[in-house]
Amino acid sequence: MTISYSFSHLANTIKRSVMRDLIALANQPDIISFAGGLPAADHLPHEQVHACMEAVLTRDGAKALQYGPPYLPLREWIADYMRRRGVASAVENIFITNGAQQGLELIARLLLDDGEPAVLEALTFTGIGQAMNAHGADVRTAPVDLETGVEVEALAEALARAPRPRVGVVIPDFHNPLGVRLPRESRMRIAELAAQHGVPIVEDDPYSLLRYEGEALPPIKSFDEAGAILYLGSFSKMLAPAMRLGWIVAPAEVLSKLTVLRESIDLESSQLLQRVATEFLTQGHLEPHLQALNAANLERRNAMFAALDRELGGVAEWTTPQGGLFVWVTLPERVDAGAMLRTAFEHKVAYIPGANFSPNGPGPANTLRLNYSNSTPERIHEGIRRLAEVVKEHLDRLI
Amino acid sequence: MTISYSFSHLANTIKRSVMRDLIALANQPDIISFAGGLPAADHLPHEQVHACMEAVLTRDGAKALQYGPPYLPLREWIADYMRRRGVASAVENIFITNGAQQGLELIARLLLDDGEPAVLEALTFTGIGQAMNAHGADVRTAPVDLETGVEVEALAEALARAPRPRVGVVIPDFHNPLGVRLPRESRMRIAELAAQHGVPIVEDDPYSLLRYEGEALPPIKSFDEAGAILYLGSFSKMLAPAMRLGWIVAPAEVLSKLTVLRESIDLESSQLLQRVATEFLTQGHLEPHLQALNAANLERRNAMFAALDRELGGVAEWTTPQGGLFVWVTLPERVDAGAMLRTAFEHKVAYIPGANFSPNGPGPANTLRLNYSNSTPERIHEGIRRLAEVVKEHLDRLI
Repeated sequence: MTISYSFSHLANTIKRSVMRDLIALANQPDIISFAGGLPAADHLPHEQVHACMEAVLTRDGAKALQYGPPYLPLREWIADYMRRRGVASAVENIFITNGAQQGLELIARLLLDDGEPAVLEALTFTGIGQAMNAHGADVRTAPVDLETGVEVEALAEALARAPRPRVGVVIPDFHNPLGVRLPRESRMRIAELAAQHGVPIVEDDPYSLLRYEGEALPPIKSFDEAGAILYLGSFSKMLAPAMRLGWIVAPAEVLSKLTVLRESIDLESSQLLQRVATEFLTQGHLEPHLQALNAANLERRNAMFAALDRELGGVAEWTTPQGGLFVWVTLPERVDAGAMLRTAFEHKVAYIPGANFSPNGPGPANTLRLNYSNSTPERIHEGIRRLAEVVKEHLDRLI
Repeated sequence: MTISYSFSHLANTIKRSVMRDLIALANQPDIISFAGGLPAADHLPHEQVHACMEAVLTRDGAKALQYGPPYLPLREWIADYMRRRGVASAVENIFITNGAQQGLELIARLLLDDGEPAVLEALTFTGIGQAMNAHGADVRTAPVDLETGVEVEALAEALARAPRPRVGVVIPDFHNPLGVRLPRESRMRIAELAAQHGVPIVEDDPYSLLRYEGEALPPIKSFDEAGAILYLGSFSKMLAPAMRLGWIVAPAEVLSKLTVLRESIDLESSQLLQRVATEFLTQGHLEPHLQALNAANLERRNAMFAALDRELGGVAEWTTPQGGLFVWVTLPERVDAGAMLRTAFEHKVAYIPGANFSPNGPGPANTLRLNYSNSTPERIHEGIRRLAEVVKEHLDRLI
């Protein structure tokens, strides 16, 4: 009696993110999970958001609940913030999105046709590959370095190869999954490459304000004289995921196209959340929030380094992030972190196998991504102790 | 120095919604605008939303700001609500979206491939055509009747024709732009047709609770035994647009596909807004809100009928909605409501030319859509007086 659905090619081929399933699975209270990409739950600024919500609804009433154009004071704050980071931008260059993921979807929709090449990092956030694949990208990758992110001359080669890519994507700051940063000269070179090859490059930057060590580095976009860098910002990590707000910095001609494309996807972002975020930002809550958040993240990263040293020193290697949410761990070559995951669940600890972060076939099997921002130092020590047992058990079985 | 962008085929061909530009233009305070599709700004329940926000942030704190799965109590409320409307649904059938427009985008993405047919009403909400076109639909239309909505036997013919359509879309209640409702027997027949032809039909229902006259009619989905009806609900009109929340009722197998497709678009809906909406619904705010809203809408519709009778009786004809936001007006055949718009702006009154509501080339030139829900009776009387002047001036020029 029930009809059988004919799904689109996309719906039939898109891969369920293993990560989401894993993160859900790892969400049981007795499991110490390093799997998610969540900001520290105990440092989400709910009291300040509460006060801002109060202020907005008292002041704006029904206006905050109605349809409306992208909220101008929010675009103004963002344009000003980008200028402080060295990006020559005006309100006309700021497009409000529902988080950086929607920015990726919109840019893929804007630039890609079926079978057209896109250049991604060989290890990158899974949502980037999903958005590009949903628009038929033929994905090329550029290798990454575990200290400095994407290898810029390899990126140059991938951009130069015919047919010309329609878009490239890089994560400059506190890379997901690697945790590392692009040096200043790489940023300059990437802006230059985009201009030289005429290929728009997306600078996906949800993490740069989550810096607890080292100096601030200018965004790639600050070196962009050709309008070739599409900068993606997000309030999810620097304020709160449930704001569902982010932004694109782009040339005005691109913005007008994005506006039309956005209509058919979901019309617009919430007037209420846009106003609350603006209140948070303009009332000076951001700085103290980031100070507390980054202090906590630093403490957690230090706990993870100490635990890794103690438990896996000499066995594993790991990246040395100065901000963001993640450490990338490389285990002995014969380890299969995907196969090892079952043992990890038995030992009540979880991570994401690094192989999942390759947008083009499986990545290196002996790697894993650890999130330290959403666990206390105590749980980090205990979790890494369990992880070390898991690794030893796994290695013993392989002998 | 600046690069020239190569846009996708879609970005190069998608049409900017004339409506959005028009609505923005008509938003000046000295213009009486019947153009928008906004719920009554003076009846948005901001005090209740304020109280709910208060309750949620006090109770849930940081949890309301974090990432999270679709909020179960909201899905439960919706499943229960749909059951009260005669739809056999469980939580497993309820998918949360950012409003009905995102539901349309997701369903288009789920079912359509380039060049595959989709059957739409010959006059329909512009966002439906936009979503289907964005996924390459070859749009077929079924004519509409100005008293009863889509002509069901013509719909049957369009569904039966080869190649088989991948999807159909109808608006059963208080149609946008017509304001009319499908009779009960048409609803039964549409459910039957979807099953018979194996074509999923979207029931786009943002308006059914905005009923101030006549009896409630069961949704098409309540007659659906084949799992062939994809019901779209929205909180934008019944609660507030800025909640940016809606839902899809679909078979569980469809839901699991939607979940994967949603990830790459924008990950998820706001935990905060989902919790606030749930609080609003479970604390009993919906009924009194709808009573006040519908009483205001009835008063406004009556004002519009009285004004139309007085000013354009014998010249124009109009539909007789019993709910929703819109009246559809047919002027003498020689009128071009698009061309007349300039005169209308001179007279400080605005509407949407009916031609814009055809998803397949321009619709009837001598028609227009009037929104009555977002103007007071006084402004409606004055606005229709101005509109009548505009029509007379336009007709005089044509002689």
